[in-house]
Amino acid sequence: MSERLIYLPLGGAGEIGMNAYVYGYGAPGKERLILVDLGVTFGDMDTSPGIDLIMPDMRWLEQNKKRLEGIFITHGHEDHVGAVGYLWNKLKAPIYARQFTGTLARLKLEEMGLPADTVNIVAARPEVVELGPFKVQFVPVSHSIPESGALIIDTPAGRIVHTGDFKLDGTPVVGDAFDPALWHEIAKEGQGVKVLTCDSTNIFSKHPGRSEATLAEPVTEWVLAQKGLVVTTTFASNIARLKTLADAGAAAGRKVCLLGRAMRRMVGVGTETGILTDFPDTIGPEEAAGLPRDKVMLIVTGSQGERRAASAQLARGRYLGLSLKEGDSFLFSSKTIPGNERGVIRIMNAFSELGVNVFDDNDGAYHVSGHANRPDIEAVHDLLKPQMVIPMHGEHMHLRQHMKLAQGKGIASAIIVNGNVTDLSGDRPKIVDQVETGRLYLDGSVLIGAMDGIVRDRIRMALNGHALVSVIVDEEDNVLPDAWVELMGLPDRTRGGDDLSSHVEGELAEFLEGADDRTVRDDGKMDEAIRKITRQVCMEEIGKKPEVSVIISRLMAD
Amino acid sequence: MSERLIYLPLGGAGEIGMNAYVYGYGAPGKERLILVDLGVTFGDMDTSPGIDLIMPDMRWLEQNKKRLEGIFITHGHEDHVGAVGYLWNKLKAPIYARQFTGTLARLKLEEMGLPADTVNIVAARPEVVELGPFKVQFVPVSHSIPESGALIIDTPAGRIVHTGDFKLDGTPVVGDAFDPALWHEIAKEGQGVKVLTCDSTNIFSKHPGRSEATLAEPVTEWVLAQKGLVVTTTFASNIARLKTLADAGAAAGRKVCLLGRAMRRMVGVGTETGILTDFPDTIGPEEAAGLPRDKVMLIVTGSQGERRAASAQLARGRYLGLSLKEGDSFLFSSKTIPGNERGVIRIMNAFSELGVNVFDDNDGAYHVSGHANRPDIEAVHDLLKPQMVIPMHGEHMHLRQHMKLAQGKGIASAIIVNGNVTDLSGDRPKIVDQVETGRLYLDGSVLIGAMDGIVRDRIRMALNGHALVSVIVDEEDNVLPDAWVELMGLPDRTRGGDDLSSHVEGELAEFLEGADDRTVRDDGKMDEAIRKITRQVCMEEIGKKPEVSVIISRLMAD
Repeated sequence: MSERLIYLPLGGAGEIGMNAYVYGYGAPGKERLILVDLGVTFGDMDTSPGIDLIMPDMRWLEQNKKRLEGIFITHGHEDHVGAVGYLWNKLKAPIYARQFTGTLARLKLEEMGLPADTVNIVAARPEVVELGPFKVQFVPVSHSIPESGALIIDTPAGRIVHTGDFKLDGTPVVGDAFDPALWHEIAKEGQGVKVLTCDSTNIFSKHPGRSEATLAEPVTEWVLAQKGLVVTTTFASNIARLKTLADAGAAAGRKVCLLGRAMRRMVGVGTETGILTDFPDTIGPEEAAGLPRDKVMLIVTGSQGERRAASAQLARGRYLGLSLKEGDSFLFSSKTIPGNERGVIRIMNAFSELGVNVFDDNDGAYHVSGHANRPDIEAVHDLLKPQMVIPMHGEHMHLRQHMKLAQGKGIASAIIVNGNVTDLSGDRPKIVDQVETGRLYLDGSVLIGAMDGIVRDRIRMALNGHALVSVIVDEEDNVLPDAWVELMGLPDRTRGGDDLSSHVEGELAEFLEGADDRTVRDDGKMDEAIRKITRQVCMEEIGKKPEVSVIISRLMAD
Repeated sequence: MSERLIYLPLGGAGEIGMNAYVYGYGAPGKERLILVDLGVTFGDMDTSPGIDLIMPDMRWLEQNKKRLEGIFITHGHEDHVGAVGYLWNKLKAPIYARQFTGTLARLKLEEMGLPADTVNIVAARPEVVELGPFKVQFVPVSHSIPESGALIIDTPAGRIVHTGDFKLDGTPVVGDAFDPALWHEIAKEGQGVKVLTCDSTNIFSKHPGRSEATLAEPVTEWVLAQKGLVVTTTFASNIARLKTLADAGAAAGRKVCLLGRAMRRMVGVGTETGILTDFPDTIGPEEAAGLPRDKVMLIVTGSQGERRAASAQLARGRYLGLSLKEGDSFLFSSKTIPGNERGVIRIMNAFSELGVNVFDDNDGAYHVSGHANRPDIEAVHDLLKPQMVIPMHGEHMHLRQHMKLAQGKGIASAIIVNGNVTDLSGDRPKIVDQVETGRLYLDGSVLIGAMDGIVRDRIRMALNGHALVSVIVDEEDNVLPDAWVELMGLPDRTRGGDDLSSHVEGELAEFLEGADDRTVRDDGKMDEAIRKITRQVCMEEIGKKPEVSVIISRLMAD
């Protein structure tokens, strides 16, 4: 049987987040494999209450880890590198990344007590990593974090370009500019590009993306116009933006103070790796608190309304000796990710109550996106002239729109989602198999499966409340007359004003007194009957059916 | 002591939703009162899991109901009329509304078995309702529901104009056009306008609002361009939009079918009250299913991604014999309300998976807002020339922005939020007292207080899981050795792979064996100790502290 080139997303295709893409080359079922990215996504109250981090279920790759040659991390965003500390142990393949990204990956491994030296630092093209049938190069691209890298993956079946996250920015302030000449060169080499696996995040944005450099002037003008303390927020990893903001603060004669662990860490790694130069001197919160308000700019974490970040702490009151008041100004140099609106709005209103003037991105004057918009994506299609386009890094609707864009230009394309084993050997992508994929939840310190029912039970308790019933059966299989009912997350009183638990206890006592021996001896039957009665009584009395847990204690003769 | 004019929002000021505004005139503490609107807002998983409807806590007004002359409902949106069925019984004052709104209010009362004849139908100005010191007129304004009414409230202390929800639309398709001449007249009468209490929803929208009539052409062109089944969604109550959509469908040679109870009800009431004329003939779902796909347009409920609405049902598959497929088109002729993004996106992706082409409002080509934008609000300030402006119908940041706008024009203004008793007698608003306000949750069939702790417990169970511990103490105050632990919403296994409940049971058994008599006899001490141990063990083993319920059963000697 001949060899083939395959693509298999395990995360990131059909969703935005937790990127993990497998490529393989070899005889079917025996392909040598590489993994591109190993990221996380974040939980939310609607679908995953109590869950901080979500990551791809790598079961398939774990089962095939002997075939895994290496893991390439395109850039340092959490949705690309965030799962390294949690999942590397299951895969144990060497990691390859550029300097800045690799440093972040090493920190993550160290935090989990894993060997940081598994991370190999790779220079940008022309350096080539040769692993089995793969020759891989990192191509500098512009994005909202420095040293983002597209990958050139050369295989015996042809060249793949995997864009990672990118935008077309010729003046990105920090990090690599997008270089069309370089991409032109990549398209011309050898047989050209067989497959372009391409970021789809902003496929619905119709206008060409704007450069980070366009922000300097409006942001500086904005800072100059403010009279009190100035606070700005953006993603901690957006080092270029931190520089744009800090430079604007300095230009306006303000001292800059960074608040939030993630932000200080990013600036530290940026400086350490030589990426970030000329960053204005920063001061600590104590010094900031001692200066006149119009001489200080805080740059803080929490642009998405995260409850524990610096922005939320400031919104609630004093934080590290600093507090905001009437006449101060707060700028969201960011866009709210869909789903985070409520959290951001909560903070905006809290600031409003303090008398703080809140500013959003002002239709883009104070924020630009890190992803390529539709015209930019088209430009890359045109530059690389790939035989086929595989849309990735998108929800289903993004992938579909991107596919249509490619097909409209006569390029072969398909919607490939997590778990689709896709043969790229021919002249169009062909789904040839389906592997089991899914999500792992980091719950406290334990990884659980999204489908294990644990989170489902939490959601049910949140929606329906929880009734606990305790029943005791004595040594002679007599039920003691009192069932005990404890309610959690349920009203105390019925519609008629009675005590709800007493009411349920009364109905249960009636049942237990009349229950026959066969029922009483059978835990399953007892459980079912008690559950049913409890739910029915609650439905009648309060109009909802709670979750019910029944504990039957059987006393043993000594 | 002299008489005074007061304003007291009980809902809707400092939030968007559950509007309820009190005005009073008379000796302090003895003012005669009217209530404007009695609305609901909707729950969400983040802050109110399991709660369908939220309404203002009317305790203060209930305690003062003898002073309440009447309830005026400005228009038929749920956030203005939705609580009538649940709270009228606590107030029992006559309701006044225009025909369409009043019909909706009557339906709500009837559904709850309350007297519908408490609703008095009032014609628009010049009809005057005289109640105690108040003379009230309904002034037709344009909004996204027909027969929206601003109120002129004349009192011995001067004229109040309470806008309700409004926009400046000279061609609203259905319902009353905004008439500047009329407002000019209102401003000129008598002493002019003392107080303008004004909608703040769109205060952050910088451009003048657009007319409903501007949608007809782009929507019709859009329908003409579609080849398969066409589905559109908008708010059920936006009757003008339903007509815009249906007319576009009919113009494109399609039969129109309405799906969703709320939508059929609205069109029914609209037709019945004579507001809606010339609506294209509609067909039922069975007939629609039998026609060629390119001859049908469905107009469905669920523009906000509501799980039980028609749009979500169609996204999940077959609904009333209809299903969508490759080549069909779905248009959101609506904007997503902040907080509903995830639900809407879920549906968009589900349609994408079916191959349906999904369209959003296309930067406003297929949707216009029902609220006045900033320039429109300014125009009303200019038209009415009020002595003071009270911003309402907004979150804190909206009220603040609106206040600044007014103050910038030299008009007295203040941020007045729920519970602020505000004296309007002077030349500027003055907060003179604070009354207790809050929220009531409709939970199943019971009204509970937002601060009762019930919903807090649900959120805690959702975030932390719930551990139940059952302990039995025998007739001689000996603890039976086995504590029983049942887990809900928690992992079965510890990080080390052990059974978590067994592990907790083991630790509890150790404690119980060593517990002294004083502890064992004391329910409070036992509860506290068991709770503490359970939480500690879970923290060590799974990295989180669950909610714990302890049931101590004490066996009695016969």
